[in-house]
This record gives sequence, structure tokens and C-alpha cells, in this order.
Amino acid sequence: MPLFGALEAGGTKMVCAVGDEQGNILERISLPTRTPDETIPEMLAFYRGKNLTAMGIGCFGPVDLDPTSPTYGSILTTPKLSWRGCPIVRHFTDALGVPAGFDTDVNAAALGEATWGCTREVANSIYITVGTGVGVGVIIDGKPYHGMTHPEAGHIIVAPHPEDPMPVGVCPYHPNCLEGLASGPALERRWGRKAQELSQNPEVWTLEAYYIAQAICNYIMTLSPQRVILGGGVTHQEQMLPLVRQEVKRQLGGYLPGSALENLDSYIVPVSLHDNQGVMGAVKLAMDAASSSGVPHL
Amino acid sequence: MPLFGALEAGGTKMVCAVGDEQGNILERISLPTRTPDETIPEMLAFYRGKNLTAMGIGCFGPVDLDPTSPTYGSILTTPKLSWRGCPIVRHFTDALGVPAGFDTDVNAAALGEATWGCTREVANSIYITVGTGVGVGVIIDGKPYHGMTHPEAGHIIVAPHPEDPMPVGVCPYHPNCLEGLASGPALERRWGRKAQELSQNPEVWTLEAYYIAQAICNYIMTLSPQRVILGGGVTHQEQMLPLVRQEVKRQLGGYLPGSALENLDSYIVPVSLHDNQGVMGAVKLAMDAASSSGVPHL
Repeated sequence: MPLFGALEAGGTKMVCAVGDEQGNILERISLPTRTPDETIPEMLAFYRGKNLTAMGIGCFGPVDLDPTSPTYGSILTTPKLSWRGCPIVRHFTDALGVPAGFDTDVNAAALGEATWGCTREVANSIYITVGTGVGVGVIIDGKPYHGMTHPEAGHIIVAPHPEDPMPVGVCPYHPNCLEGLASGPALERRWGRKAQELSQNPEVWTLEAYYIAQAICNYIMTLSPQRVILGGGVTHQEQMLPLVRQEVKRQLGGYLPGSALENLDSYIVPVSLHDNQGVMGAVKLAMDAASSSGVPHL
Repeated sequence: MPLFGALEAGGTKMVCAVGDEQGNILERISLPTRTPDETIPEMLAFYRGKNLTAMGIGCFGPVDLDPTSPTYGSILTTPKLSWRGCPIVRHFTDALGVPAGFDTDVNAAALGEATWGCTREVANSIYITVGTGVGVGVIIDGKPYHGMTHPEAGHIIVAPHPEDPMPVGVCPYHPNCLEGLASGPALERRWGRKAQELSQNPEVWTLEAYYIAQAICNYIMTLSPQRVILGGGVTHQEQMLPLVRQEVKRQLGGYLPGSALENLDSYIVPVSLHDNQGVMGAVKLAMDAASSSGVPHL
């Protein structure tokens, strides 16, 4: 049975795994993200000798996904300076001698859920993660969507809440984008404590739900997904999903027809793959790379 | 040579046309939109006896585009009450006995430009019209995009400008959506005069550009189009496009990489089909309907 290398490359940790065609994760390690010179050899040591058919990489970004570009497979203008310009895909294809699929971390997670998880029966879905940063993976017609570059929908501009005690966000690029106002660091700056220590403060989560819901309304108006997955650290607060659904309903204002929106409990859903959606999506990227490279035994 | 009926169905007027496979518009009339009982027979009288191969209809919405739905081809919750529930497609297929393609008015316009106009060399583009209402047509992989229903991106929530003298919009559903704050009626309510009479007031157009640019930034972050077309009545103000481009650049804040965004003059562009983009897109809808119906001489 063919085996696939799967990498969920994050700014804090690298999750390295091996999976099969059913999306089973057979082996998995997590390494801290240091510099490429340090971390890439450690990752390669994990994958070597495992007789992999292909690699799949879901990577923090922005990344170059244009196969016709000379910098295809590289990390672009990330604030993690040592990774800026890193040709991450080439490191793996050169060292392992197998084809590699490549996408953003959030597109990989969206693809994992769309292949084996809670969006497998719909063609168009989005996966939102709200944690240290905010990212959105977009699946259209069953495939990760790129467009000109790739969606960066964590940075949409949002209307500050009139009672937000800190309506200027933490994003260095945008005074009031979603990530700047609703990420973990935004919460910590606004309330002076880490999110985990604020569970008992309802005003924190009401405001957080306002921003996430506003973004979801805008994604619905723009992308018309058939289902919305909300993941990331913020969903460890169990009150969030019900609050977000209630606020989406309020902000949509009854405008959009469609039975899916009448039952938001099955429209806005939590992740279903127990935080393996990223590496499972990377397995699917690897499978697709193998197919399109014409690897014979697939 | 096969001939195609093309209808751009608007809330104010119905543009009825006949075109060929090159998108040439051979004949065209405009009728006021009254009730279906009055206007549909007038439109049918125009198309009858013209030996059409198929019809294409781009229609004001929201509309039901789901081919598996019992109400496919109908107009849904429009404020124009006499048209609510109108099975507009069936009126034409029944009376003319030809297949019909159907989409939103803005998707049809986006398709016209993508087939014969300024977005024909890119696979992913959007067409924004700002006039009596605000609508956005979305082309993905060369085809009009629907998703769950269809994009309604004129209704995304936007952050009011801190100096907007009238920051509550005219949309009955959303206190601060784009249409509510930037459509013609919004301008008229805010400034007490019609847009045409305000050309010499720079504060009007600076504020208008702020809202349109904010929406375009969000569409870029979410849909990552390769080109953005801005049309509709607002673009009759010649100062608008340069103002919008300047404001998009400011609001993006240098965040997104990509050469397309370095030259906004060729990224955010006016319509190229002289306000025939809607009927020309409807011709393409008709051509596609004929192909997929297996009409023999195509």
C-alpha cells in the first residue's frame, strides 16, 4: 500500500506525518519551528527511508502556489524572516526524490475535512481557524481554491464594535482587519490576559463572536459556501459556536434565502478530524501530486 | 448561423436582444419592467418568430440557480413583489420551445466580459456594479460561480468611515452593508441630492471611494481574483476609478504580494463592452445551454 508524507508547516511547530490512501495517520511527530537550516534536516530525517510515494505540504504563508512561477513552492513575505523566500517544496522533492503537493496550511485543513471529514458531501466549503492568527481555507468544486495567489481572508476589514474597548487591531498592515481584532494576541492585548484565563468573562466572547460572525456573514455573501467549519484555539471555548451562530443569524438579518441558513447548527460546524485535518489534507495533496505525476502504482 | 435570445432582466428595465456566436448583438430593445403579466408577453413578442436556438437570461435576484430545485429558474425574495416567485425561465422555455441558460444579472455581465471583454485572458475575475443597487458577479475557472445559492457580495458588512455624515445605510436588512452605504440611493440620502448633481463635491467621491475600495480589498482577500471590473452608474463619475485604486492601495497596506497588485491600473478596470456586457453574457448563457442540451447544429 502506498504511503504518503504529510507536513503541516506552521510558524510555531511542524507536524510531520505519514498516512495512507484512506487518510489514516500511521505515524506523527511535532517539531518546534526554528530556522530552515535547523528544522528542515530534522524533518527530512523523519521522512527518509519510509519509502514514500509522494509528499504533501500545507504551509503557513503567504506562499507561491503558481506552478508557472520561478518561486513556486516558496514561502513569501512572512514575518518569520528566516523562512522568507525559503523554497520549502524543493527541499523535500530534492532530498526525497518524490513529487510533492503544496498549498496553504488552511487550504490543506479545508481539504482534509472535504476529503474525510464534515464537508465531504459538499462541493463548496470554507474552513476558518481563529488562534494565534486567523486563516481561511476555501474549497470550490472539491478542490482548494487559489485564484490570483490564494485567499488571505483572515485579513478582511471588519467594522469595529461600537463598544470595543480596543477597536484598533494588532495587525501591522491593517488597523481593523479580522486577525487584528479577533486573534489570540488581539484578545490578550484588549483584555490584558490570555484567552484561556478569560473563559468566565462573557463580554470577551460576545465581542469575539461579533467579529467572527461579521466575517462569516461576509464570506457567505462572497463565497456562498455550502458549509462553514470554525476551528482553531478560539473554539476551545465551548460557548463560542452557539454565540457565533446566533450572531451570524442576527447580522444576516434574514436577507439570504436558502434552507441551509435556516439551520445554522448544521451549517456552521466544528472541525471533525480532531486537529488532524491539516496533516490529513496534506496526505490528500500528496495523493493528488502522485496521480498527476503519473506515479505508476496508484 | 445559429441565433440566441438574450435577456438582461432588471428591476427597472428589460433589455431584450438577439446575438450570434461571436457575441455580436444584432437586435436590441429595452422595455420598462412592469408586472410579469404585462412585461413577459411583451418580451415574448420580441423573441417569437426569430428562429432562436436557445435563450439566455441574466436576472435580478436573488434567484434560484439550483437545477435540482423545484423552483429552479424562479425569482426569490425580491422587494419587487409582483416578480417574487415568478418562474421566469419556464415562461421562456414553454413559449419558445428552446433550452434556456439562467444566472444572476451580475454573473451574466461578468461572463460577458470574461468571454468577449477585458477579462477574457484570466480564469478568475469579478464584476462589481454600483448603481441603484450594488452587485458582484464572480467568475471562477472561466464559469459563473454559484456555491450554495449565488454570491450576494453587494451586501457585505463594511466599516463606516469615521467622518461619514450618514453612517447608517439604506438597506432594510443591514445597518451598514456596502449597498446600504454606497448605492445611488445611499448617496442621495446622505447628501440630499442625486449623484449626478454632486460631481463637483470631492468629499462625496472620496467617501464613496473609501467604501468601494474597502469592499474590493475584502473581495481580493476572499476571492483572490486576477482582475476586478468596476461598472455601474457610479463609474460615470470619471474621478472614481483613480480614487478607488488609490484607496485600495492604501487599505491593502502592502500586505499582499503579487505583481498584479503593483499595477492597479490594469487590475481594477472599467467595463469594456459599452454596457452590452449583460446581454452579451446572456448570449453566452444561451450558447452554453444549447451545447449542454445537445442542440444538433452547434
